[in-house]
Amino acid sequence: MSNTKPFILVTNDDGIAAPGIDCLVSALQAIAEVAVVAPDSEKSAVGHAITLSDPIRVTDFNKNDQWHGFAVSGTPADCVKIAVGALLERRPDMVVSGINLGSNAGINVIYSGTVSAATEGTILGIPSIAVSLTTYTHAIFEPAAEFAVKIARLVLTKGLPPRTLLNINVPNVPALEIRGVRITRQGMANFAELFDKRVDPRNRVYYWMDGKKAELAEGDDVDDVVIRQNLISITPIKYDLTNYEFIPELQRWIPENEKI
Amino acid sequence: MSNTKPFILVTNDDGIAAPGIDCLVSALQAIAEVAVVAPDSEKSAVGHAITLSDPIRVTDFNKNDQWHGFAVSGTPADCVKIAVGALLERRPDMVVSGINLGSNAGINVIYSGTVSAATEGTILGIPSIAVSLTTYTHAIFEPAAEFAVKIARLVLTKGLPPRTLLNINVPNVPALEIRGVRITRQGMANFAELFDKRVDPRNRVYYWMDGKKAELAEGDDVDDVVIRQNLISITPIKYDLTNYEFIPELQRWIPENEKI
Repeated sequence: MSNTKPFILVTNDDGIAAPGIDCLVSALQAIAEVAVVAPDSEKSAVGHAITLSDPIRVTDFNKNDQWHGFAVSGTPADCVKIAVGALLERRPDMVVSGINLGSNAGINVIYSGTVSAATEGTILGIPSIAVSLTTYTHAIFEPAAEFAVKIARLVLTKGLPPRTLLNINVPNVPALEIRGVRITRQGMANFAELFDKRVDPRNRVYYWMDGKKAELAEGDDVDDVVIRQNLISITPIKYDLTNYEFIPELQRWIPENEKI
Repeated sequence: MSNTKPFILVTNDDGIAAPGIDCLVSALQAIAEVAVVAPDSEKSAVGHAITLSDPIRVTDFNKNDQWHGFAVSGTPADCVKIAVGALLERRPDMVVSGINLGSNAGINVIYSGTVSAATEGTILGIPSIAVSLTTYTHAIFEPAAEFAVKIARLVLTKGLPPRTLLNINVPNVPALEIRGVRITRQGMANFAELFDKRVDPRNRVYYWMDGKKAELAEGDDVDDVVIRQNLISITPIKYDLTNYEFIPELQRWIPENEKI
């Protein structure tokens, strides 16, 4: 094991046994030493949840003797925190989260466990990227894995601005059908939620949350629009949520020294 | 019941039985018709998690005949979604989330269930605010509740910019000791995580996540700095996470039509 190779932490939100993480690890091993610390089960749509009220369990995970890692009884953000804070012997040079089944574009970025893991890496000062594939079935992981390697090389060389990560969405088509790459902004089309109200065998009401993302005419520089055109989308994401433009107006609303 | 009164949805992440929500509901009833839809148990640090893999249960909750609401087996974001999508008979004019035990300032904004509920209201196009108190014990809720009413009146009159909510943190001191109000930006001081490694009675290792927020010299316009000075902090938060400034540089990294 040479310390001159970069050291990459890989995680995801589909769970350590998911095929997407396996393909990503194999591809990244060509350029880096890779550690895997990922949830022990699927943790989709957990947003940036962290586990404070429960103990966190860690178990060894061995993937067909090709790689081994740690399976964590927590969220993707927990995985990155505990990897860096307790499990890994040295600090990773980069965090790569994915490959997620299902795009993480538009408003979904806010709910995404995949993106939250990369955000957590960024919070810890480690350049981080999230990689998602635009499908839930019949996944073609290889082009996304190869593109992740390409971007990982760039990020390891050039770094990223403070508090900024890259959110990458790859269309689920063979490599030859991918038409190119676009730098995008996060789309803002809302979900139209549907709550499916049902009655269980004990006559108690429950709901399933379901919904469909609206398709807005938001422009050609938007993540969701780009991936529908078989282009790879890269959105730079930052976690300073302040709306700076609204501060002067708010200051007019509320005089500083007014008694409450 | 007059429809001329504004209609406010109140939620939180400490659970529908928490004292902070009770105080907030009582105060808001002076200016609005109030509906309460909140988690059936504590959901702190859940970030913007939503519940897609499990059914969601809803039960009636009656608070000493003073108000009644719905207790939801989900996250704060779930509560707002299901309130608007299935439970309430009309659309709220505003969402107020809180009063949270513990500040939601700086990096904590990202992990906060309280803020995520207000974010969800904003996503649904409803002006929303989050209110938190800087303590976990010996809470003095009344000044925060009164200030929430004041801001609710302003927001109901003036509205908020698109995709923007207000994140309010109130120092836990009697009203007379609150020195004023500041419009702030989200601080960026990291948590220093500690993982407390223990062995359970069956000799299995587990970890507790713990940590301490670093105190950076970030400036007098930062949320965490302001609340330590017994000032109320109001941060305008937006959920477009795009780092627009980095887009031109990224475009130089990756030519648009390069084959992947």
